Amino acid sequence: MRIHIHNAPDDPLFAITPRQWEEAAARAGAEGRGHSVSFGEACPVLVAALAEAEALIARPAALAAAFPAPAPRLRLIFSTSAGVDALAPFTSLPPGAILVCNRGIHGEKAGDYAIMALLMLAMEMPALLAAQQGARWEPRYNPTLTGRRLLVVGLGTLGAAAAARAAAFGMEITGITRTGAPHSACRTVLPVAALDLALTEAEFLLLACPLTPATRNLLDRRRLALLPAGAGVVNIGRGAVLDEEALADRLDAGHLGGAVLDVFAHEPLPSGHRLWRTRNLFLTPHISADDPATYNPRTLDRFFTALGALVRGTPIPNIVDYALGY
Amino acid sequence: MRIHIHNAPDDPLFAITPRQWEEAAARAGAEGRGHSVSFGEACPVLVAALAEAEALIARPAALAAAFPAPAPRLRLIFSTSAGVDALAPFTSLPPGAILVCNRGIHGEKAGDYAIMALLMLAMEMPALLAAQQGARWEPRYNPTLTGRRLLVVGLGTLGAAAAARAAAFGMEITGITRTGAPHSACRTVLPVAALDLALTEAEFLLLACPLTPATRNLLDRRRLALLPAGAGVVNIGRGAVLDEEALADRLDAGHLGGAVLDVFAHEPLPSGHRLWRTRNLFLTPHISADDPATYNPRTLDRFFTALGALVRGTPIPNIVDYALGY
Repeated sequence: MRIHIHNAPDDPLFAITPRQWEEAAARAGAEGRGHSVSFGEACPVLVAALAEAEALIARPAALAAAFPAPAPRLRLIFSTSAGVDALAPFTSLPPGAILVCNRGIHGEKAGDYAIMALLMLAMEMPALLAAQQGARWEPRYNPTLTGRRLLVVGLGTLGAAAAARAAAFGMEITGITRTGAPHSACRTVLPVAALDLALTEAEFLLLACPLTPATRNLLDRRRLALLPAGAGVVNIGRGAVLDEEALADRLDAGHLGGAVLDVFAHEPLPSGHRLWRTRNLFLTPHISADDPATYNPRTLDRFFTALGALVRGTPIPNIVDYALGY
Repeated sequence: MRIHIHNAPDDPLFAITPRQWEEAAARAGAEGRGHSVSFGEACPVLVAALAEAEALIARPAALAAAFPAPAPRLRLIFSTSAGVDALAPFTSLPPGAILVCNRGIHGEKAGDYAIMALLMLAMEMPALLAAQQGARWEPRYNPTLTGRRLLVVGLGTLGAAAAARAAAFGMEITGITRTGAPHSACRTVLPVAALDLALTEAEFLLLACPLTPATRNLLDRRRLALLPAGAGVVNIGRGAVLDEEALADRLDAGHLGGAVLDVFAHEPLPSGHRLWRTRNLFLTPHISADDPATYNPRTLDRFFTALGALVRGTPIPNIVDYALGY
């Protein structure tokens, strides 16, 4: 099959190399053989490759820039990201191709980040490190995470990994998902309709859902105000799931205990944005789920899984549902 | 038995209350009944109580201030701290009493703090939060803790709890103890004589040992220089176990990746101390092992265990060995 791999020119750490491709193809066995692969970084190279490519590997931002471009032979678009909100509402994509997202590889790192963030909030690290900057010895003693109530919105790869880690620290976890189906790490899972009530009981809120028409601004100003005084907020999903201004207001006013944000409605976060300096807020630049040691090998393994299923005509995992948006 | 409880006047959060005493006495059953207990905060009250007290509960700092005072009937001194280095070399304590330390209650919180600190170092949080302060979007992508090499010095309550958490995150752990006896969370445990070699292979160093004549300045300038470039250092034991100036030099020079310190040779850390502003260093004010939700109940339960053993003449756990210093 004719395959094109588009690497982002501004992201060399995550560029897929010919050697990584060859190693993944070898792991794939028979399904890894007989392909013709090309690599590129510039958008015109991508557009040119689409004249003949049957499968494409690229980040959503590159896909959004390239399409609608003629792609007469394209059958499989493999997004190297799990979140494909940059492509919504998906109307520019060629109708003959399916879009498969890179769901499932981000859990380990995201689970580490999530439990780190929860521990930092539980120990009031934002206040302790503000004291450090002022050379002030101001002890704050706090209990462990055991028995404390965590609300996880979204139980995909990220949310499930976070919930599993939190459960190992003894937290009592309520999940919120579209369906409300049970989950092994959660005491309770509720559908989105129960979100308001669940918020009133949460000591910690962790957002780990994709950005879709149903989740955009889900945590709006009214809902953020339902959180108890002193609650902590973590966002590892997508920034636009919450109202950043409302969150900053509640942090600045001292209503919330603290927040750790890794994702933002606009990335990179503009240099003048108030979130850079909001009280009791730690922010990181969208690094919570990306492990450079494993990212590309796992991505390529999943690509070959999708390609093999396509060739065999068996069900392809992680096809994006354009109506749901993930 | 005549028991006196001394609470530190500057530490109301951890003051043992009459109600906590009554609840613990009830939990102790028959061994909790028939005692005469008094409470105090001032040193003269403590000294006066020693005229008749048979058992005493107090922090080491208060004991160091009170003794040598006549304590003709005193049989049991129960330190509310696990570390009793403030009382070394123990020559002021009344010879008729045993000193029992509060070993075993600090593990859960310390394990939480330790894994938080290791995750923060693994994710380069010191650098990321310095970037936040400068409103700079500077992603740093790092692998998870899986397979990374942790050296834990001291496998008492704190070190064992930290090692258990780190093992759950897939770290490869080497322990250093006085004896080198095996430990379930560690791949290898070595005696102190092997410390130099172990340091050369450590990606992360976690110090969790008591301060004794054998551990004072154990991590001196020469040994700190054995750590590989980019290594991370965590100290939750006692500050004087490491050479703070040497550590700061190696952090400022960029030889080490970062450090998280909760304990210091002089506490509170003096306001002009360079550690407040050392590069890639997070410091917290000795809060890593103290959970106010459980501290006093657990302390009193251990006191009653010691008291019951003393009365029955059975072996008393956690008697301090004055020669070893813990």
